[in-house]
Amino acid sequence: MIRYPESMSELNGFLAPKTPSGKSAIVPNMPWYYSGTLLTVEYLTDPANVRAILPPELELADEEPGAVAIIWADWQSCSEGGAELLDPARSQYLETFVVVRCKYEGVTYSRCVAIWVTKDFAIARGWFQGYPKKLGSMHVTRVFNHGKATPKLENGAKLGASLAAYDHRLASAIVTLREPSETNGFVNGHKMLHSRWVPSITPGAGNSLDQLITMGGVDADLGATWVGDAELTLGDSQWDELHSILPVNKVLAGYYRELGVTFNGGTLVADKSNPTV
Amino acid sequence: MIRYPESMSELNGFLAPKTPSGKSAIVPNMPWYYSGTLLTVEYLTDPANVRAILPPELELADEEPGAVAIIWADWQSCSEGGAELLDPARSQYLETFVVVRCKYEGVTYSRCVAIWVTKDFAIARGWFQGYPKKLGSMHVTRVFNHGKATPKLENGAKLGASLAAYDHRLASAIVTLREPSETNGFVNGHKMLHSRWVPSITPGAGNSLDQLITMGGVDADLGATWVGDAELTLGDSQWDELHSILPVNKVLAGYYRELGVTFNGGTLVADKSNPTV
Amino acid sequence: MIRYPESMSELNGFLAPKTPSGKSAIVPNMPWYYSGTLLTVEYLTDPANVRAILPPELELADEEPGAVAIIWADWQSCSEGGAELLDPARSQYLETFVVVRCKYEGVTYSRCVAIWVTKDFAIARGWFQGYPKKLGSMHVTRVFNHGKATPKLENGAKLGASLAAYDHRLASAIVTLREPSETNGFVNGHKMLHSRWVPSITPGAGNSLDQLITMGGVDADLGATWVGDAELTLGDSQWDELHSILPVNKVLAGYYRELGVTFNGGTLVADKSNPTV
Amino acid sequence: MIRYPESMSELNGFLAPKTPSGKSAIVPNMPWYYSGTLLTVEYLTDPANVRAILPPELELADEEPGAVAIIWADWQSCSEGGAELLDPARSQYLETFVVVRCKYEGVTYSRCVAIWVTKDFAIARGWFQGYPKKLGSMHVTRVFNHGKATPKLENGAKLGASLAAYDHRLASAIVTLREPSETNGFVNGHKMLHSRWVPSITPGAGNSLDQLITMGGVDADLGATWVGDAELTLGDSQWDELHSILPVNKVLAGYYRELGVTFNGGTLVADKSNPTV
Repeated sequence: MIRYPESMSELNGFLAPKTPSGKSAIVPNMPWYYSGTLLTVEYLTDPANVRAILPPELELADEEPGAVAIIWADWQSCSEGGAELLDPARSQYLETFVVVRCKYEGVTYSRCVAIWVTKDFAIARGWFQGYPKKLGSMHVTRVFNHGKATPKLENGAKLGASLAAYDHRLASAIVTLREPSETNGFVNGHKMLHSRWVPSITPGAGNSLDQLITMGGVDADLGATWVGDAELTLGDSQWDELHSILPVNKVLAGYYRELGVTFNGGTLVADKSNPTV
Repeated sequence: MIRYPESMSELNGFLAPKTPSGKSAIVPNMPWYYSGTLLTVEYLTDPANVRAILPPELELADEEPGAVAIIWADWQSCSEGGAELLDPARSQYLETFVVVRCKYEGVTYSRCVAIWVTKDFAIARGWFQGYPKKLGSMHVTRVFNHGKATPKLENGAKLGASLAAYDHRLASAIVTLREPSETNGFVNGHKMLHSRWVPSITPGAGNSLDQLITMGGVDADLGATWVGDAELTLGDSQWDELHSILPVNKVLAGYYRELGVTFNGGTLVADKSNPTV
Repeated sequence: MIRYPESMSELNGFLAPKTPSGKSAIVPNMPWYYSGTLLTVEYLTDPANVRAILPPELELADEEPGAVAIIWADWQSCSEGGAELLDPARSQYLETFVVVRCKYEGVTYSRCVAIWVTKDFAIARGWFQGYPKKLGSMHVTRVFNHGKATPKLENGAKLGASLAAYDHRLASAIVTLREPSETNGFVNGHKMLHSRWVPSITPGAGNSLDQLITMGGVDADLGATWVGDAELTLGDSQWDELHSILPVNKVLAGYYRELGVTFNGGTLVADKSNPTV
Repeated sequence: MIRYPESMSELNGFLAPKTPSGKSAIVPNMPWYYSGTLLTVEYLTDPANVRAILPPELELADEEPGAVAIIWADWQSCSEGGAELLDPARSQYLETFVVVRCKYEGVTYSRCVAIWVTKDFAIARGWFQGYPKKLGSMHVTRVFNHGKATPKLENGAKLGASLAAYDHRLASAIVTLREPSETNGFVNGHKMLHSRWVPSITPGAGNSLDQLITMGGVDADLGATWVGDAELTLGDSQWDELHSILPVNKVLAGYYRELGVTFNGGTLVADKSNPTV
């Protein structure tokens, strides 16, 4: 029997599973590149609802503390070298995420409080980043350049979006474009402040990992951005809460943006882990 | 008990299921509008292989009778009024289809001999049109305007595509763009000549419906078109034949095209139905 | 160049696509065998609602004309030889279907007025049989023999079921078993009377095929059957009508049954096809 | 503006996302209950291959160090109270996992080195447990009690299974039952020894969490168990390695088992976390 020399048992992979080649890792090393579109609806809920889904160590933002953004992102993404782009099942996904703002040690942050994605590699990246990702089914109208089955980037154009999980419809939106915009809204405009934790494998023993981290995209390559009016209907199910925790008091605006962005890590802000459990 | 007057039991719907409102029909009335992109690989197989998948009443095309096109279409589609665009799950789908040419009564036609789609409404439209549609899982690289996770329409850009059915990979392709092109290839460039048939509900009694029909898109709104080189790998499974029936002898070229098109019916060419069985 | 002899261009396949081997056909030749379970909820709607979804040539049933059955079937199926069972992706599917009764020329029939399935081969079989099939996402609680994550066949056991299409929840049910039963209900107990039609490829030209056919399973191999109480919630979407066309006035009962059955064709009842269009 | 009292901002949920109610958590509190079936194929690979996918701190097992089990589990699962069973989309999933054995501080353990599942809650549970879970598409023949579309638990019965990820077929198996068996094989028969780690959010800064843990099911409720012969074909893709890292030298046996089991946590074995990065 021939055994690999001990030195060959080095395992590689940013996340599991690790193998000698590292090819099997559900997520490769950073940086991760993204090209896509965002359809955003911003609205006001009662600030008490935002307060209620923030952990105690965070405060409400000073301005418009009840503002919420729900965003449909239609992404193509890859790592260095772009191999994922040539087997595009590995590169394309959608995500719908809900963002509020908060304050920590005097700094205003954005914070994602709910998010659904369509692929496992996106879940894995998200859990590393403190995004509370689940799988969902989501769709968003695309803007094509030709034919009659597409909105164009022009006044009055309508784009629709939907989100479901476990066969329950959780959100439906329609954005009617009005005019080009300088901004894509204000809620999702700060560094993210996220919690990431792993419970002890022992029931009731607390968290082996428990961190507050901050992060954000870099190298933003912004494209066409439009603002307009929006309609938004939120739902709930036995497994997912949207309407019940962040109901829509007043829709503020809808946005459509093309963009590219890069993710290359973040910074630890605070830690209360107990890895000995 | 109040019954609807007899006249109210009129049922509506282009295809099943019919209801009084007609809303439940899997496909609404024509015309059907399409906006999207096509990624095409054209190649040569042995003309004998093309001959073998044509019904006896058709002949091989006079020129390049062994030419085949495999096409990945990334569609958004809707009917009159565009309601599907606002619930985009109902409007977006992909399809991969294989086209050869043939001759019937002296006229050259294109003919789809295999096709996979991602949605039921697309299957239904296809069966009406004589496309031999099945469900599949397919992906094709998209061209975004911003960021690093996308090819651009430029020399050297690479687009990938894949097709699987019943968890067997049936085709993988990579197209490397070279330059703008006047054409999108020559194989899928004629009116389609399709067979559509329905067997008798009685086993062995022949076909209740058996027609040869012709059809094609109208109102083509052509966009950017590029040509380049291509790699193509075809597979088979117990349930699907591609490599075994139309193997690749020589790849001719790859194409990328943006387009819009409308479908509004076709024409009966020949009939040998026996609806009394 | 070697061409196949003309006689080799014979194409095989019960339904499309036809190839020389016949292997690619989305559905193989009958008979088709089924093993599985049925979860049924029977309820009363207003007979006028049943009348409204029957074509004019059919009448309401004489007894309980407003009775409806909604059935979740969890199937494993195969053709002669059973090859599908060894690549089980090709053999397993779920379907949810809605059955009413009707009368034609004095005979009482069952008739399926809505049905969703999870696989393309099931859609294809259904369209041949006059079932108005669409794709959907459905789930039904299974009965396992061991462990704590399963109901057992005993008084008080609860089974759940759900149906969604295009990410809209269309039906949710809970059946609470009470006792063994001789029957599986009375609505889905007759031969089926189905319409099958294909519109002319020419818009507005009528139907090339338009038949009334009857069919039913044979060789029923019935297993454990239980009856109990049921809860049923129906929904609608822009694309699918259940609550709006067959609302629940009163739930009658719920049933669970294990069974096997064979399908081997049916009989033409009436024809008004016009294959010359 | 009315704010929730500070004490109401307590967030609940075993894993993310946390909300006041705790309902949104992708995974509820342990214990987790499972009912289902296992189809197992055990085979021999070169022990060097097993050595190569173990981290350096683990040793090969003393006996049959090259033995591997690949297992298809068809699960229904729930938490305390069983609510998931009544919305069965939330309760049913399949998983295919690959197990080897290893030795740590003189004790023999089982270790899962690759695993694919069909639902997000199963991914989440797995990452907590150190299973290197990804999403996949898998199918396994079921044993029904009636009809002709099912194997029965008898000599000569055949069960098939398949695994794919990103539309690449990774494994296909056929097990031919021979006789009842006392065991379900020997590879997956020890406590599991798993690694679980979370990289620092700072690129290159090491692992914030890095633990070796052990765990296993409790309250096993074993049912019918059969042994027989097996065929197994493994594949690879650009994203997943099976054949290339654990090739089949010799198939040992195939097994089918019905069972129930409960998971209620495990024990920390070793820790080299650095939560300050």
